[in-house]
Amino acid sequence: MRFFWASSVKAFRDFSPCDLRRVHFRASWGIRATTVLYQHSRPFFYQTQTGDSTDMATKEGKSNKLSFQLKTPKGTRDWIGIDMVLRESIFSAITEVFKRHGGTQLDTPVFELKEILAGKYGEDSRLIYDLADQGGEDCALRYDLTVPLARWLAMNSSVQHIKRYQIAKVYRRDQPAVAKGRMREFYQCDFDIAGSYDAMIPDAEVLRIIVEVFEALDMRDYITIKLNHRKILDGLFTACGVPEDQIRSISSAVDKLDKLPWDQVKLEMEEKGLKSEVADKVGEYVRRNGGREILDFIKADGLLCANEHIKKGIEDMELLFGYLEAFEVFDKVSFDLSLARGLDYYTGLIYEVVTPLSTPEGFANAQKKTKSKSKSDDPNVGVGSIAAGGRYDDLVNMFSKKRQIPCVGVSFGVDRIFTIMKQRLEKEAEEGNATVRSSEVDVFVMAFGGKGFNGLLIERMSVANQLWKAGIKSEFAPSVKPKLPQQFKLAEAGGVPLAVILGEDELAAGKVKIKELGLPEGHPEKEGYLISRDDLVEEIKKKLSKPALPIR
Amino acid sequence: MRFFWASSVKAFRDFSPCDLRRVHFRASWGIRATTVLYQHSRPFFYQTQTGDSTDMATKEGKSNKLSFQLKTPKGTRDWIGIDMVLRESIFSAITEVFKRHGGTQLDTPVFELKEILAGKYGEDSRLIYDLADQGGEDCALRYDLTVPLARWLAMNSSVQHIKRYQIAKVYRRDQPAVAKGRMREFYQCDFDIAGSYDAMIPDAEVLRIIVEVFEALDMRDYITIKLNHRKILDGLFTACGVPEDQIRSISSAVDKLDKLPWDQVKLEMEEKGLKSEVADKVGEYVRRNGGREILDFIKADGLLCANEHIKKGIEDMELLFGYLEAFEVFDKVSFDLSLARGLDYYTGLIYEVVTPLSTPEGFANAQKKTKSKSKSDDPNVGVGSIAAGGRYDDLVNMFSKKRQIPCVGVSFGVDRIFTIMKQRLEKEAEEGNATVRSSEVDVFVMAFGGKGFNGLLIERMSVANQLWKAGIKSEFAPSVKPKLPQQFKLAEAGGVPLAVILGEDELAAGKVKIKELGLPEGHPEKEGYLISRDDLVEEIKKKLSKPALPIR
Repeated sequence: MRFFWASSVKAFRDFSPCDLRRVHFRASWGIRATTVLYQHSRPFFYQTQTGDSTDMATKEGKSNKLSFQLKTPKGTRDWIGIDMVLRESIFSAITEVFKRHGGTQLDTPVFELKEILAGKYGEDSRLIYDLADQGGEDCALRYDLTVPLARWLAMNSSVQHIKRYQIAKVYRRDQPAVAKGRMREFYQCDFDIAGSYDAMIPDAEVLRIIVEVFEALDMRDYITIKLNHRKILDGLFTACGVPEDQIRSISSAVDKLDKLPWDQVKLEMEEKGLKSEVADKVGEYVRRNGGREILDFIKADGLLCANEHIKKGIEDMELLFGYLEAFEVFDKVSFDLSLARGLDYYTGLIYEVVTPLSTPEGFANAQKKTKSKSKSDDPNVGVGSIAAGGRYDDLVNMFSKKRQIPCVGVSFGVDRIFTIMKQRLEKEAEEGNATVRSSEVDVFVMAFGGKGFNGLLIERMSVANQLWKAGIKSEFAPSVKPKLPQQFKLAEAGGVPLAVILGEDELAAGKVKIKELGLPEGHPEKEGYLISRDDLVEEIKKKLSKPALPIR
Repeated sequence: MRFFWASSVKAFRDFSPCDLRRVHFRASWGIRATTVLYQHSRPFFYQTQTGDSTDMATKEGKSNKLSFQLKTPKGTRDWIGIDMVLRESIFSAITEVFKRHGGTQLDTPVFELKEILAGKYGEDSRLIYDLADQGGEDCALRYDLTVPLARWLAMNSSVQHIKRYQIAKVYRRDQPAVAKGRMREFYQCDFDIAGSYDAMIPDAEVLRIIVEVFEALDMRDYITIKLNHRKILDGLFTACGVPEDQIRSISSAVDKLDKLPWDQVKLEMEEKGLKSEVADKVGEYVRRNGGREILDFIKADGLLCANEHIKKGIEDMELLFGYLEAFEVFDKVSFDLSLARGLDYYTGLIYEVVTPLSTPEGFANAQKKTKSKSKSDDPNVGVGSIAAGGRYDDLVNMFSKKRQIPCVGVSFGVDRIFTIMKQRLEKEAEEGNATVRSSEVDVFVMAFGGKGFNGLLIERMSVANQLWKAGIKSEFAPSVKPKLPQQFKLAEAGGVPLAVILGEDELAAGKVKIKELGLPEGHPEKEGYLISRDDLVEEIKKKLSKPALPIR
């Protein structure tokens, strides 16, 4: 069982990241293995789910007379097995896209000086993990990856242009909601373009990158990118008569339009002190979304296009739309005047990627539907945001007055993406249209013999060694004198496709037997065949290059 | 300049990890780029060296009237550019080997419950980073990766066998010594085999893995693995008359024999209260090292082989030597009776990998020598340990009395390895036998035109998009109307091998020009050639598959 799992863990670790079909395929085998596991060792997998599910730990704890619970800290978890493999495959797919666009990796320390983080996150600052005083510097665990980037850009004034990406854990002392995938330690996955370029060119590339990422994850058909422009939004509020000092609070009310009906949003506005008729005027505009027609509408509206900010915003959006068509991603965006985004530091284009897949119903529907473009008129869209970002031209300036470097970027919510992918894989596994190959080991070296058989351990070791030297992933039974059936069981448990079988007489004649495992009865090579040991590596490589190998 | 650097960062990110020659090769280009960088933007690279080099930050700080220094915390650093790329290539090489042996990746939280770490590190516990009280659980940053593994094994009682690896940052509130590469945040890289197997089989595989790793890093010829066995060592002390309660302290004195002359070590023993004649007796034994002859010597020694522990240890070592021969790594080990290792929890085989490369003289000599097996008789050996480990059968038991799972493993000191590799790469760069290709982008899409040329931005975008869709790494000048020389400059700075050049008339005819950059004068394709845009992707892929592409 353990072996079955241990090897299931290794499933599809060697995947070409963008080949997600293949990942799904193998993943479902892995999931199979996991399912089996659940029956045999629930505590194990249960435990790996989160630091909060401690019943098993407690049990152990008691039986051990340990003074403390054996568990991971609240809101954290261990990653291993199929979850780890799936997470890694998502990261590789994303990294592949980042590199295709010339991305450069940055790795910053897990903690920063407290002052660096101070005053960047508003009231959420209470969620920052401080380190105990280390006699000197006050430090805190990073809360996101954007502020460390800004700190780095401020420190390194020689950097004028960079496309940087970072995939790393961030920390928030939030109330964990494991089911929703809200943890205290979780991954963020950011791509940002810093530097002065001609207007909207990097913005368009970031949107192109978003679409390529979800294409690599086989989710392109299920996402919509909601777009808006801070200059248009704020200008619109001003034009409607929203007092300057109320703009951000009204803005946050409007942001809820994707979850609440208009009259509730209006109510909130009025409670925030906005005149009813002003609210209605705002409502006429912010309830609109679509494509170019929104631009035409604004341009045709005397009130709006009189506003300088809006004029600038319209110019940007017109440039952008042209670029998005060249990048063939225009069909994925929805110009949504109600999109506001929480963070204050955005200064231009803002966006949010939504998908129906993040709700059970949405997921079910999406599976039923033949792949359909899910535009924002889809009732499900807007329920879950799985990536978001925008342009922030002034953040670096907060650290270094000398330094003004415009930035635009996106952050992928990999935990939500992970949840969706896992759901999907489990579904594939249920459908069981894939058989389980739970190991990436290619060759199992075994031995057999008659009376007085000594196990040929040394010989198995040196054959395994011969294969390792050739870079071939190989294992052998870790015991001196294993029975042949036992060795086959290990190989099959790992779904290893090839066996190299050693026998005393064959070895004496300088030969070994190669056997493809899982061949159908009556197959000419069912019983395997002998080859000279000198040809072993070459023969194995030939066999492994054939995609025809049976998948177990 | 920035561009030159920005792309230098991307150098050789897409390498087959085990192909280190190639890595060195490209790395030296990178280093070139870096060298250039040093002149132009020392503060940048200086700053990325460590959180302690804050002069630039301070300067900025003042000029900004910031109330704090703009820097990373003490003993931490940002990783980017050639360092990041080199580090990643080392990790991939190591991971490749781990997977070849069926390794499974585990990822644990960066902090653990304080009690988990308590009482595992002796007096070094003072170096543990505590988190501020988060109102409830007391947590601390992990100090190593072994204790989290033991905690995980104790929690997951269904795990009977596992080969697990983990490559992750650990934290020690030590006095940083940047030059020596001693940081407060640094990477550890562990491989451990947990489970009950027949004696010494996993131990032998771990030693095989060590050699494969250094082979992958092109360092095989410069390492020696010093071996010893706790049972033999402790038995030897007892046999010589060292009182039980003095064994560990005498042991730590003996451990210094690779750095201090015998009489100093003897002095320390006597100061620790050991009788002079006992010390001398110990000295006769522990000053021996070599191969099988050491075993024969012990077996021939009546005093020693009377000791039960030593008998057991000898059995183990005889098995091990046989296995190491089958694995073809026996030539890399030195049975060294003075090796003791600090940690208390070792119960059997212990080992330490040493190399002359970690000292400047050693490095220089190693370069001079034609590759020679550097055995531990090499005066330089023993100066720097770059990997170490051993068998610890009782650690998991500390967490879970119910649980007794034997473990053996190794931890690679990737920081020291990084320092050695970087030294080597810089040397290669000086020798300048490699030219600089500082980018992994394969195609630069550019445009030109006569009077009234509009820059063809949209066309450049859609050609780049055509290439991205085919998975081809491509860039274009991020401006509306770039001059042709400017575009070539960007491409050359990035060492991009291929240019796709758009012209108005050619596009009208559905054609684009492909040009290999850096072809010698007079080469038939020097000026490039026109092809139909429909054939572009296919043609580019054909060209990229040729290794013949000029490296710039």
